[in-house]
Amino acid sequence: MNLYEAIGRRRDTRAEFTGEPVPDEVLDRVLHAANAAPSVGMSQPWDFVLVRSPQRLARFAAHVEEERRVFADTLPAERADVFDRIKIEGIREAGLGVVVGYDPSRGGQHVLGRHAIADAGLYSVCLAIENLWLAATAEGLGLGWVSFYREEFLRELVALPAHVRPVAWLCLGRVAELPRTPDLERLGWQARRPLVIHHERYGDRSRLPDQADHSRA
Amino acid sequence: MNLYEAIGRRRDTRAEFTGEPVPDEVLDRVLHAANAAPSVGMSQPWDFVLVRSPQRLARFAAHVEEERRVFADTLPAERADVFDRIKIEGIREAGLGVVVGYDPSRGGQHVLGRHAIADAGLYSVCLAIENLWLAATAEGLGLGWVSFYREEFLRELVALPAHVRPVAWLCLGRVAELPRTPDLERLGWQARRPLVIHHERYGDRSRLPDQADHSRA
Repeated sequence: MNLYEAIGRRRDTRAEFTGEPVPDEVLDRVLHAANAAPSVGMSQPWDFVLVRSPQRLARFAAHVEEERRVFADTLPAERADVFDRIKIEGIREAGLGVVVGYDPSRGGQHVLGRHAIADAGLYSVCLAIENLWLAATAEGLGLGWVSFYREEFLRELVALPAHVRPVAWLCLGRVAELPRTPDLERLGWQARRPLVIHHERYGDRSRLPDQADHSRA
Repeated sequence: MNLYEAIGRRRDTRAEFTGEPVPDEVLDRVLHAANAAPSVGMSQPWDFVLVRSPQRLARFAAHVEEERRVFADTLPAERADVFDRIKIEGIREAGLGVVVGYDPSRGGQHVLGRHAIADAGLYSVCLAIENLWLAATAEGLGLGWVSFYREEFLRELVALPAHVRPVAWLCLGRVAELPRTPDLERLGWQARRPLVIHHERYGDRSRLPDQADHSRA
């Protein structure tokens, strides 16, 4: 699949999983795409834990359901009504969860590019997740990032050591189809917004004719 | 360009920029690819500030050079020798810097999926950066993420308001070529590592034959 097509077809998938297993060679390509992501100082600080046990999937789904209620309780009535119609996860239906962890010890003591920006390692893990997501899309799979959970719960569920931070739970699986419109847009939760570009300084929205801004630099 | 090809050809670019301007329509496609990234609660919490002023590029490059020295001073002699040969930025040569900011106020008061994971908004910004990077690659452009800077310096340089966090400076521009091997690998700083997968629990590296792990869930 063409890159721009993959970017455009990618959706956060909740309701469309069929539960059919993902062939090993497909999963392998998708995970290798993640491992080919850029990372600060080439530290590749990600770990992937594949969860298929129905019991573990069910335990995570029950925790997420609790967190759904926690969030719902914070909403004003009108938003709560909209939220009520939104499916937030397909954990059991997908049949496969990919837990992505961040290991700051990867890359040794002196990670090139991380001394000034401590979060740069965490950023790298997210780049890998986007590669994984786009590769899944190109393979015709659905992926749904679930973030209704407490990190400590997930850490314990898949036995992450204390120094590895859980960054994501990704539902990954075969789908009947990928929706054309994001659920949150279709159900009236949030509209997509146009691209916001500033020139030279935040708030300057028009580009100068000479493409430079000598007066201010 | 095919998605997997873009993932494989993508490099963190430092030395190959030619300084020729990026055509507006190409830049437009690359930035729209970023804006099409997934985001928590569809909040799209990213901002892009395009920096082309030679003076501003030079000011940032001088700051990065200082931070290069700060990092070099932390290294043991042997690593310092290797680091000495590594070019860490192409800020002026690229002629265009894309500052990416994270605005947590985007998406309103109740961002779906962010109540339990405060950093989920920051994660979204990184997904947009990876889309941008892959689109740049597909367009034949080079991109180099510079992280040798202090966030406060960059905030002031492009006048980001207090609530917008600087996440990245991306050098973006036309290149003579994209290297096949990452600089850090070629120069002996860091080797690429194979993919690490765990099954059901961190540390369990072998998959059970039945694809499930009923005893432990």
